Amino acid sequence: MKALLRQQGKIRVQDVPEPHPNQGEALIKVLKAGICNTDLEIVKGYMDFEGILGHEFVGEVKQAPSNDWLGKRVVGEINIACGRCDFCRQGLENHCQSRSVLGINRKNGAFAEYLTLPLNNLHEVPETIDDQEAVFVEPLAAALRILEQVRTDEKDGVLILGDGKLGLLAAQVIKSQTDRVACSGKHQRKLDILKDKEIKTFCGGESIEGQFDIVVEATGSKEGLKQALSLVKPRGRVVLKSTFCEDVDLDVSSIVIDEVEIIGSRCGPFSEAISVLTSREIDVREMVDEDFPLAQAAEALSLARKPETIKVLITP
Amino acid sequence: MKALLRQQGKIRVQDVPEPHPNQGEALIKVLKAGICNTDLEIVKGYMDFEGILGHEFVGEVKQAPSNDWLGKRVVGEINIACGRCDFCRQGLENHCQSRSVLGINRKNGAFAEYLTLPLNNLHEVPETIDDQEAVFVEPLAAALRILEQVRTDEKDGVLILGDGKLGLLAAQVIKSQTDRVACSGKHQRKLDILKDKEIKTFCGGESIEGQFDIVVEATGSKEGLKQALSLVKPRGRVVLKSTFCEDVDLDVSSIVIDEVEIIGSRCGPFSEAISVLTSREIDVREMVDEDFPLAQAAEALSLARKPETIKVLITP
Repeated sequence: MKALLRQQGKIRVQDVPEPHPNQGEALIKVLKAGICNTDLEIVKGYMDFEGILGHEFVGEVKQAPSNDWLGKRVVGEINIACGRCDFCRQGLENHCQSRSVLGINRKNGAFAEYLTLPLNNLHEVPETIDDQEAVFVEPLAAALRILEQVRTDEKDGVLILGDGKLGLLAAQVIKSQTDRVACSGKHQRKLDILKDKEIKTFCGGESIEGQFDIVVEATGSKEGLKQALSLVKPRGRVVLKSTFCEDVDLDVSSIVIDEVEIIGSRCGPFSEAISVLTSREIDVREMVDEDFPLAQAAEALSLARKPETIKVLITP
Repeated sequence: MKALLRQQGKIRVQDVPEPHPNQGEALIKVLKAGICNTDLEIVKGYMDFEGILGHEFVGEVKQAPSNDWLGKRVVGEINIACGRCDFCRQGLENHCQSRSVLGINRKNGAFAEYLTLPLNNLHEVPETIDDQEAVFVEPLAAALRILEQVRTDEKDGVLILGDGKLGLLAAQVIKSQTDRVACSGKHQRKLDILKDKEIKTFCGGESIEGQFDIVVEATGSKEGLKQALSLVKPRGRVVLKSTFCEDVDLDVSSIVIDEVEIIGSRCGPFSEAISVLTSREIDVREMVDEDFPLAQAAEALSLARKPETIKVLITP
């Protein structure tokens, strides 16, 4: 089959053998996959990952240890847990210390014709959600994770830093909890998606008024946390979403003096993301810039890398 | 009066005029003061403070707008709030945006014969607490602040990094909540104080076993946060106590991946600290290394700077 690989630091589409499902795993034909900022960081060397990239996908189950799953259209949670360690036993499979992660850590990913995942990781996609939308289940779940970690009430002022796909999703998800949401980004075209939903936006050099109870850092850049700390109120909370391969230079004393909380935030609830998409509370289709065939994955990655792009899809 | 000043980056004891209390303030004769790691950082340039150093003290009220306070032995909260801003109105005076801070920011401090503080900041010290002990009210309150911010239960494993005075106080305070407390430091003599109280200790190069639900970073050094992040469990919490003048180089992605919370922690409840000292739950006298007259403040600072020192006092 064709797949987009990172091998010895180089990225290319090439022919590789079809994967064989391990025990408990399904073989899934990938229908559509999405490029995420993490993929772009992996291309640069983040996680030192070697193998097939990609972790946002929708696919069809072709082989499975249980017939119930055959032919089903599914999305999949990306952490493959051991099921036996202390974390797994506490229901914290996403933090299993010997986990592999689809397209990120020791597990071939979704930019390929086929992938394998444990049945435990799969969620069936209702017919009302089309393939393009289904690719957003994983990032939407990551946005919903914020609400699991940070209770907001109507009085809280929330600022989202970053107008990438995750920032735009986070802003819309938080809008369901409080009207006092704003998003700061660099691209008017992206921010207009939020303006239509009555979310305040700050574009480019526009100065941001005031300080916020909660700042969600979703810039994908190393400057994000510094900026978040400069915009959060004393005793406020910063939700940290960006992962990248460089270290950050930080004034740690300001965290102490202002008694700020910084909360790392990663993967979220797939079932809830599927219900949000089903109910059309959030419309993700307007975020898709282009959908490339897998053979043109290199072009897809370069478009995804452009600052004005929101979401690029790949169809194997 | 004599006072220890930082002026144009230089530190010396010199004669300065006695302070005049502002409206609402008392004039306090300083009976004894303590040198804190923050003072040593201020000497190095932290906060760019110029004026009389020192913020841990016990004193006697010599003049006050209310006769009730005259002659009373007091300790004082160090943040001088405006009383009018949004933070003050919410009871968050410690985070007042126009606050001055005793011996730290725009307010002359306690290494002097006299200081002034608003009556609101004062707490009477019971006779059962002697002057040496009373100097520990401020740092003990800072240790108690951890319990206000981080609920611990008996199952939580807690590690304190740092065997300075704050680390030793934090370990003892947390021991009242859970037996699973350990403290890592560099000086056997300091750690022995905790060993006597059945708190597990790690000294110097001794390797620390396992990972912890909560890590309290009280090293006073820029390596502390990195070390804390390497020792906290995924989904664990790091309480950050150290303030210093340098920036820290940090792997921010690990905070996101492990969904760690970092919680800045500063000043705490004075009344509770006074009750803890009254009940003798924590004995602070064994932490005092030496008590210098103010004229020898330079020697006092050099002793305080030595890694093996716990607490140096100054008597004006």
